[in-house]
Amino acid sequence: MDKKNFSVPLSPRKIRITDPFWANYMELVRTEVIPYQWEALNDRLPDTDPSYCLRNFRVASGMEKGEFGGCVFQDSDVYKWLEAVAYSLMAHPDAELEKLADETIDLICSAQQPDGYLDTYYIINGLDKRWTNLRDNHELYCLGHMTESAVAYYDATGKDKFLNTVIRYVDHVDSIFGPEPEKKKGYPGHEILEMALMRLYGITHDEKHLKLAKYFVDQRGQQPLYFEEEAKLNGEKDYFANSWLDKRYHQADVPVREQQYAEGHAVRAVYLYSGMASVAQASGDETLLEACQRLFEDIARRQMYITGGIGSSAYGEAFTYDYDLPNDTAYTETCASIGLMFFARRMLEICPRGEYGDVMERALYNGVISGMDQDGKRFFYVNPLEVVPEACEKNRSRAHVKPVRRKWFGCACCPPNLARLLTSVGSYAYTLKDDSVLMHLFVGGEFSHTVNGKDVSFSVKTNYPWEETVSVSMAMAEDTCFTYGVRIPGWCRGNYTLQVNGETVACQPEEGYVMLSRTWKDGDVITLTMPMDVQVLSANPKVREDIGKVAISRGPVVYCMEEADNGKDLHMLRLGSKRDFQASFDPNFFGGMTTITVTGEKLTDCGCDILYRPDAEPVYEEKTLKWIPYYAWANRGVGEMSVWIRR
Amino acid sequence: MDKKNFSVPLSPRKIRITDPFWANYMELVRTEVIPYQWEALNDRLPDTDPSYCLRNFRVASGMEKGEFGGCVFQDSDVYKWLEAVAYSLMAHPDAELEKLADETIDLICSAQQPDGYLDTYYIINGLDKRWTNLRDNHELYCLGHMTESAVAYYDATGKDKFLNTVIRYVDHVDSIFGPEPEKKKGYPGHEILEMALMRLYGITHDEKHLKLAKYFVDQRGQQPLYFEEEAKLNGEKDYFANSWLDKRYHQADVPVREQQYAEGHAVRAVYLYSGMASVAQASGDETLLEACQRLFEDIARRQMYITGGIGSSAYGEAFTYDYDLPNDTAYTETCASIGLMFFARRMLEICPRGEYGDVMERALYNGVISGMDQDGKRFFYVNPLEVVPEACEKNRSRAHVKPVRRKWFGCACCPPNLARLLTSVGSYAYTLKDDSVLMHLFVGGEFSHTVNGKDVSFSVKTNYPWEETVSVSMAMAEDTCFTYGVRIPGWCRGNYTLQVNGETVACQPEEGYVMLSRTWKDGDVITLTMPMDVQVLSANPKVREDIGKVAISRGPVVYCMEEADNGKDLHMLRLGSKRDFQASFDPNFFGGMTTITVTGEKLTDCGCDILYRPDAEPVYEEKTLKWIPYYAWANRGVGEMSVWIRR
Repeated sequence: MDKKNFSVPLSPRKIRITDPFWANYMELVRTEVIPYQWEALNDRLPDTDPSYCLRNFRVASGMEKGEFGGCVFQDSDVYKWLEAVAYSLMAHPDAELEKLADETIDLICSAQQPDGYLDTYYIINGLDKRWTNLRDNHELYCLGHMTESAVAYYDATGKDKFLNTVIRYVDHVDSIFGPEPEKKKGYPGHEILEMALMRLYGITHDEKHLKLAKYFVDQRGQQPLYFEEEAKLNGEKDYFANSWLDKRYHQADVPVREQQYAEGHAVRAVYLYSGMASVAQASGDETLLEACQRLFEDIARRQMYITGGIGSSAYGEAFTYDYDLPNDTAYTETCASIGLMFFARRMLEICPRGEYGDVMERALYNGVISGMDQDGKRFFYVNPLEVVPEACEKNRSRAHVKPVRRKWFGCACCPPNLARLLTSVGSYAYTLKDDSVLMHLFVGGEFSHTVNGKDVSFSVKTNYPWEETVSVSMAMAEDTCFTYGVRIPGWCRGNYTLQVNGETVACQPEEGYVMLSRTWKDGDVITLTMPMDVQVLSANPKVREDIGKVAISRGPVVYCMEEADNGKDLHMLRLGSKRDFQASFDPNFFGGMTTITVTGEKLTDCGCDILYRPDAEPVYEEKTLKWIPYYAWANRGVGEMSVWIRR
Repeated sequence: MDKKNFSVPLSPRKIRITDPFWANYMELVRTEVIPYQWEALNDRLPDTDPSYCLRNFRVASGMEKGEFGGCVFQDSDVYKWLEAVAYSLMAHPDAELEKLADETIDLICSAQQPDGYLDTYYIINGLDKRWTNLRDNHELYCLGHMTESAVAYYDATGKDKFLNTVIRYVDHVDSIFGPEPEKKKGYPGHEILEMALMRLYGITHDEKHLKLAKYFVDQRGQQPLYFEEEAKLNGEKDYFANSWLDKRYHQADVPVREQQYAEGHAVRAVYLYSGMASVAQASGDETLLEACQRLFEDIARRQMYITGGIGSSAYGEAFTYDYDLPNDTAYTETCASIGLMFFARRMLEICPRGEYGDVMERALYNGVISGMDQDGKRFFYVNPLEVVPEACEKNRSRAHVKPVRRKWFGCACCPPNLARLLTSVGSYAYTLKDDSVLMHLFVGGEFSHTVNGKDVSFSVKTNYPWEETVSVSMAMAEDTCFTYGVRIPGWCRGNYTLQVNGETVACQPEEGYVMLSRTWKDGDVITLTMPMDVQVLSANPKVREDIGKVAISRGPVVYCMEEADNGKDLHMLRLGSKRDFQASFDPNFFGGMTTITVTGEKLTDCGCDILYRPDAEPVYEEKTLKWIPYYAWANRGVGEMSVWIRR
């Protein structure tokens, strides 16, 4: 692994999104989510518990008297908001919003302690208690989000006040944790700081930041287990100690290089793996990269829902075991799918492989954006693949599944996480190396890259995911030699055409990418066409819950059936053999989506009031079935929903 | 409703079971369960928490110093043991065991307080606190079990010491609860006392006992809700208050006559309904009977597993809603199926209907006896219909499901409940009226009845449930005119022959029973033949979890597939169209059972390591499938099990 040759993601500053699909989401975040969350941070929302978030900073900085309020990780809410604001400012400058952000940063920085420490929970409750419960109390998690937002804000505005505050805090953390005998041997209870430090390193190039990230990664799960030693001192019981999850919940049962399966809390897991991938990339660590590859494959091939959702169990919001993918009791948290995108993106930075891009795209167009409604006002934590509203109400094992999105959450991790993802989606589209540009996602817009030292801009035109064509027009001052890599999505299954200036390119994709290496000229156009037939998919037969069933997709979009279109008792439907799919773009369906109809079948019910009866050949009658994009479910009130249908 | 004409169950004293199926179970209870439980009651079991049960009585009676130990309902353990002992003594006199029981009764009675009160939890912890938490603290529940066992012991031995102690305690309870202004308006938090008082009434004919039972039934769910008023005083939070269950958990949300669905904790529910049925019978209360019928039908037609299991949810061990019958997350507690038998039996006493008998038989031969292993040493609380052992370990929503029976439980309700059921199973076989005998179950043995004032004995010979013939030979001193009613099981679907002295009886069953009314002579023989073809059953299509699937039964026995016979991945099997069932009695399979084989099909797996792939016509290969009786599952180690299979 030659670490010099790794690629890096694209700064959102070099992107201007123009395609209606994503521009609409970014506008929703700008006009709905960011202002709404600002109200939340300031405890001005009716009908919900106060956040206490900004008040905690005022108390911590001595501006106000009071107790700490909210969760131990309440500080992270403002950091996620600031990160979304930063990306939004890049796409849509807004002096008033920037002023609000600056003032908020002033408030945050004013709470910093002389030694650099900055966590309001312990500043308010007693600094003597800090660093005594890494397992549960999220100090390093908050610092992780703080770091991510400071990097983003610096990138967006060039202002370094927040960044310098973070660097001071990181210096303090570096003085507390490390291999030196006098330092603590701990690591984050909820991972994120690992990848955040790597983003910081990307700006500072300070080896200390890489070293600290690598320490946290390497130390995790080493004997004696830090969380056990810590619990002996603080007496805090591990909530998961008596379950199978136990230390797996925190991915802290064995060192990361020995971890064979994606396990434990799904968000924590993919955040950790993202950090591992960044450390592996920067340090050229082959054994760490192998662990990343193994864990990625375990997720993608054995533990991921067709929507890109991960986390099969509500208990622990966790992975369970290979091929255990129950549709109606899934947890599949929005944040976990977002974290899976983080992980996939970092694997792509190391090594372009179609599987990474496919997973990133699958999560994005399905289990990530399903987290928000079409108005940007309501959110899902849990993104199930099968819902019967009565079960959610009356069968507790389904109670974590909500049949409609909710306005806000006490523990509001998903909405701001979605906000920062959606405002920066363009930066997932490409990775850059010195001499190459890799296009992973098909996002319409203007992208500026520096390739081989020369500025090149790419104008991407597409109506993806509804239409099959993506064209990339290049603009440059002088001819430039580089490689333009185009990801050929796995869903194409080889059925695509790729043209340069109207001439078809014959070369086959390697590892899912076609590499176009040549001297490019101003005005060159690459055109990728991916016929978007409706696809009928089945799961690996080891997936017990999907046996005998199929799912429908078109392009990257997975579809579902809703009661609103298909009536109650979706389980009584089957696809049947006609398969005369009609996909059509409906401009009036939530701003325009492609929906699908097909002649399917519905089991006729004798209507007799007997539970168990002699089996008879079932009688089906034809029925037109309608599918809508999965991510758009639950925008029309309460009703049944199902992704999988019997064949 | 003419209350004079209601039938009554048969005393176990008038029964001698001879058929190998039940005699074996009774012997297991006598030789294994009763002695083992005696050790448990005396805290002499290794590897398990002490029961404290008898020690609590010693402390309460002042014989020993100490604190109360175990659950608030710990007293009930010894009562259930005594009830099983009573039935066992009837079937198998044993002077030593009876002496042990007498001494235990002496101990119990020595703890009785001057005012009649007898609950060790409050005697030890302070009598001033008694009757302050009916909702949670099980005082009336313990009295219920005390009453049941005292009645049984009196019936078995004629000794009335225990019975008189109970009557004194009931008198005390009667002085505390009732409609009079000065009395409390409470009722049991865990029902059972209602039906127990009705059994007491059957012996005492004291209207006070009927009146108290009826008060508890009528008062339940009346406004203001007693449990809410009580909680205001004692400040005890209702564990279920914030869930849909809420007051439904205790069947205390609305008055019983207004209850439309079987709801809440399943054991509590069917215990209540049993008491309601007994009160309805004795008081000729039509509106109460209507409620019983409605609730029975809701269970039998919409909320009962094919095994006779009830309670779809582990949370609250509760009913959920109509047609919600998930196989792998079921609770289906052994005690709930036993309670369903209590309810069915009492409905049969009111009115012989095939549905009641069918449900009683279905529960007995499936979801009840599945609770105990073939050695009488290990027990299930939870009787699921589909088990993947890895899911039980790693997916918390399946963690209440155990893939093997366990030795004993901290809360040991099911083993002693099974013991008292199995030792009295013969008494479920018949109900009697003045002028008629109704045969509900086909249990081989000698039964003595008094019909129209004359003693008649019936010798039932059968190898049910394995063989299709049941013959009943009558013995009497002189010719006697009466009706002998024979239940024609629903599973026969009209395919049976009924003969008297070799001559076929032509009359059709009414409501599931053929009524043979004539003057019977000594030596008359009734022969019922029910061809036991293997049956393929499907569920009402509204049952989402069973759609596209079938189950296999033969006679009253529901079958299942185990990994031990069919390999892993049972979900990849389907029945297919051959249906060439071979049922054969295997004398070496756990003492002899009929097992079934058929040529089924197994989905071939391409083995490719991809989760989602283009749907292709699935390829199946023939595979011999083996079914064993459901109740005998998990006697051969840990493995997958499934009752339902795809068609």
